[in-house]
Amino acid sequence: MSNEIKVRSYVEQINAALKKYIDFSDDESDKVAQAMLYSLEIGGKRVRPMLVLEFCRICGGNVEAALPFACAIEMIHTYSLIHDDLPCMDDDDYRRGKPSCHKQFDYATALLAGDGLLTLAFSVMAQASLPAETVVKAIKLLSDSAGYLGMIGGQTMDLQHEGMSVGIEKLQKTDALKTGKLIYAACALGCVAAGADEEKLKAAEIYADNIGLAFQIVDDLLDITSTSEELGKPIGSDAENNKSTYPALLGLDESRKLVNELTDNAIKAVSLFGDDGNFLANYARKLSVRTK
Amino acid sequence: MSNEIKVRSYVEQINAALKKYIDFSDDESDKVAQAMLYSLEIGGKRVRPMLVLEFCRICGGNVEAALPFACAIEMIHTYSLIHDDLPCMDDDDYRRGKPSCHKQFDYATALLAGDGLLTLAFSVMAQASLPAETVVKAIKLLSDSAGYLGMIGGQTMDLQHEGMSVGIEKLQKTDALKTGKLIYAACALGCVAAGADEEKLKAAEIYADNIGLAFQIVDDLLDITSTSEELGKPIGSDAENNKSTYPALLGLDESRKLVNELTDNAIKAVSLFGDDGNFLANYARKLSVRTK
Repeated sequence: MSNEIKVRSYVEQINAALKKYIDFSDDESDKVAQAMLYSLEIGGKRVRPMLVLEFCRICGGNVEAALPFACAIEMIHTYSLIHDDLPCMDDDDYRRGKPSCHKQFDYATALLAGDGLLTLAFSVMAQASLPAETVVKAIKLLSDSAGYLGMIGGQTMDLQHEGMSVGIEKLQKTDALKTGKLIYAACALGCVAAGADEEKLKAAEIYADNIGLAFQIVDDLLDITSTSEELGKPIGSDAENNKSTYPALLGLDESRKLVNELTDNAIKAVSLFGDDGNFLANYARKLSVRTK
Repeated sequence: MSNEIKVRSYVEQINAALKKYIDFSDDESDKVAQAMLYSLEIGGKRVRPMLVLEFCRICGGNVEAALPFACAIEMIHTYSLIHDDLPCMDDDDYRRGKPSCHKQFDYATALLAGDGLLTLAFSVMAQASLPAETVVKAIKLLSDSAGYLGMIGGQTMDLQHEGMSVGIEKLQKTDALKTGKLIYAACALGCVAAGADEEKLKAAEIYADNIGLAFQIVDDLLDITSTSEELGKPIGSDAENNKSTYPALLGLDESRKLVNELTDNAIKAVSLFGDDGNFLANYARKLSVRTK
């Protein structure tokens, strides 16, 4: 199967599964369910759930059984975007070309929709048809990665840097927490679902760390070089907000070079899986040259 | 042991355990950890974790082993208060006589501290020294109770009622979700930790449903009859906000009578446990006559 077709098939599988987890009641509490579904369906590339499923597959696990983990991590990613977009945080009116949750609904509903997705993620994990020990291990991994020593810690650091410029070291540390931890969790969750050994987990970690940082640098590059139409959000906002970025600190050429190096590292890490690692190798390459 | 002394001993045990779960790093992400701990330490009655521990004890379980469940539910309760106090929700500057989280820190940090506590709760659950099947069952129970079909659903309904008066049925349904579900989860988690049978779980549910509603009615009564100093927050805010309350709908005397009836029901439910149910019976009585 070509990478392209496989990505599409994964995305369809994930989208169908995500929908299944949101029930509608017939009373006034429905509004938050609608907001949760709205933000889940704004779309996105489904990078994290796809990594869960593919790592599970190449570690010899049951991909179907890992779907709840895949959905859970996408719910957590989506909640973080809803809360990030709120006026008290980044104050973004658009997300992927559509009104962000608090613009489509209202501030309080968006807050609760984020809380609802974060909470639901763990209920979904607990429903996985996998050994209970595996589920507990996965829940610990995801909550620690998403928590105050992980993603939320990175968001907190990001807040302190508002309107000031920081050095490359601090920027990398922030990103390693803010975006890196959840990408790591995605790769590791796939391995855990499959009961993979330490060697495979280590390869997943190296792959994740490298594509995670590359992903962030490409984001920064696109904020400069892309068009607003292509990105589905305003461009040039980093420079406007005086935000430290990789291109600002390293220059465009060096940043692009670093993306290539990191991508090569990621590809090397999954060579452990032989031909089975091809999808992830191609996927890393694809993410590094994405235009949105 | 008298009820009074036992409550104090439980509270000490819970406070010591809660603290243990917050680590401090030495970087800028520390701020969110400080905010999380600040809100956890504002105090409160620790009703929910106490219910976890006591139900575990009277169902013959290991109280020590249930402590992570107790801490998790208090973290979720605390996060819900932090988010409820935010300007986009109830906009309360004080909580238990102290500045609420967003006043002590800032809006964004309070948002993240709430997210952090909610996320941490599940990591803490996953660390319990109990059979993995028990932990998974408990996580499912807590996330469903706290989620969009539980507590968050109740908060959503509450939002729709802002500035309008609703009937007693709608008010009860809202409260059954908003405060009732988490009190139910507390009682049930204790039973689950102990591996209790269906009969005990059912008794816990009846106890929870009755003290849950009684608790809410007493809250409404105190908003009218207490002093601001005693409550640690402004009084009369319900009437000012045109909020439907039990005393407004039923009158003071009827409301007080209903509290007594509900408390009697709760006491009857735990008579299943014989003398072992005495603490919970006395506790239900104590909550019904509390002055803050």
